Amino acid sequence: MKNASYRLYYWPMIQGRGEFIRLALEDAGAPYVDVARASGAGLGMDAMFRLMRDPGLARRPLAPPFLVDGTRIIGQTANILLHLGTRLGLAPRGLDDRLWVHQLDLTIADFVVEIHDTHHPIASSLYYEDQADAAAKRSKIFLEERLPKFLDYFEGILAANPARGGWLTGARASTADLGLFQVVAGLRYAFPNAMAAAEVERPRVSALSAQVAERPGIAAYLASPRRIAFNESGIFRRYNVLDWAD
Amino acid sequence: MKNASYRLYYWPMIQGRGEFIRLALEDAGAPYVDVARASGAGLGMDAMFRLMRDPGLARRPLAPPFLVDGTRIIGQTANILLHLGTRLGLAPRGLDDRLWVHQLDLTIADFVVEIHDTHHPIASSLYYEDQADAAAKRSKIFLEERLPKFLDYFEGILAANPARGGWLTGARASTADLGLFQVVAGLRYAFPNAMAAAEVERPRVSALSAQVAERPGIAAYLASPRRIAFNESGIFRRYNVLDWAD
Repeated sequence: MKNASYRLYYWPMIQGRGEFIRLALEDAGAPYVDVARASGAGLGMDAMFRLMRDPGLARRPLAPPFLVDGTRIIGQTANILLHLGTRLGLAPRGLDDRLWVHQLDLTIADFVVEIHDTHHPIASSLYYEDQADAAAKRSKIFLEERLPKFLDYFEGILAANPARGGWLTGARASTADLGLFQVVAGLRYAFPNAMAAAEVERPRVSALSAQVAERPGIAAYLASPRRIAFNESGIFRRYNVLDWAD
Repeated sequence: MKNASYRLYYWPMIQGRGEFIRLALEDAGAPYVDVARASGAGLGMDAMFRLMRDPGLARRPLAPPFLVDGTRIIGQTANILLHLGTRLGLAPRGLDDRLWVHQLDLTIADFVVEIHDTHHPIASSLYYEDQADAAAKRSKIFLEERLPKFLDYFEGILAANPARGGWLTGARASTADLGLFQVVAGLRYAFPNAMAAAEVERPRVSALSAQVAERPGIAAYLASPRRIAFNESGIFRRYNVLDWAD
């Protein structure tokens, strides 16, 4: 383990919000330790909890993911991406341009909350099975109203980008492009029928996802054991009954 | 109307997410136009919709609030605060310190989503009355689990700040302090019984709220007609049946 490594703290069994950070680090080939997935001194879940629960830590994060970069501890997914963006070559240099990428990252984060709550509309602390009726109601309206709204938004942003290349902003990929790829991948897993129908009308979103998947760092990562499979403990869960498609 | 004014675009009838921006501008005494609440050429709700729905606008925001500052259009509440923070004297100068304030702003934004969803757990597009049963369930668990978690977090951050003054970070107020004030005010409105009980155990959060309310710009604003009253169209709504307190 090099001293220069980033240390990512996130739940070890799911992609979750940590995946947005993993994708950025992997795309750039940056050295990092996925702390809670590793074992040894200062590693593992215990290390994550120790840090989160240290009352004397002035800049304690509320929840994972968080990143340790030297003496900095940085929480909140989009905030971590804001910190990493220029360091990893995944953000423009100008301040206004970076705010725009960050705005897109935050809009993706809002989308993620709504996707999560399709299966957990009452409480994250309850099982899906204990809120399945409410989940069915929320999912139906999500697929009818919110999924089109968000996808149309990103399709429109892609169409309005004056630069070529198929990215959300400018002529190079940013953290927002990786994030949109991840959300599309998750939606395809969670709602295969509804998402197949939705993508027909948003070709730019599909094309963006395809070209993110082909980036060397991402392709290698997706083929590696470091990429945790989607599963029913994460944000994107497949419950067939929720996948409405008329 | 001065050319130098900020232009804030937000729903005119509620505090909502726009209030976090209004508080920052008011605290600083910054000139701004609350566009959708004003009338005249280029003002009013129509002006807001025109901008949001312009497909040719490369940096179109998905939703209000958004801020126009010169040629910039900036969306996402916390992102707007990130842009305004140093300009309004409500953020530290160092980049790492600003990321920390931003992390707190984002954690407040997460809290706000959970508070909103207590009365709208199924869909924002449905009436409360059509999701009242699910709202009762979500609210109960929110008050038992989530309210304490968030309040304890901020209480702990206040306790761990090595600087005096009672602010979340450093020795001066930031956008995060104004944000926490707003959330406390909203929670007192929405859940008077539960919040009164919760505040007994979090004296630092209460004290912070009191000292934000006494800042000259904020005190003048709260006493003015510009401060929209809490109401049952906003994020913080009072439905007595949701205000569990054992």
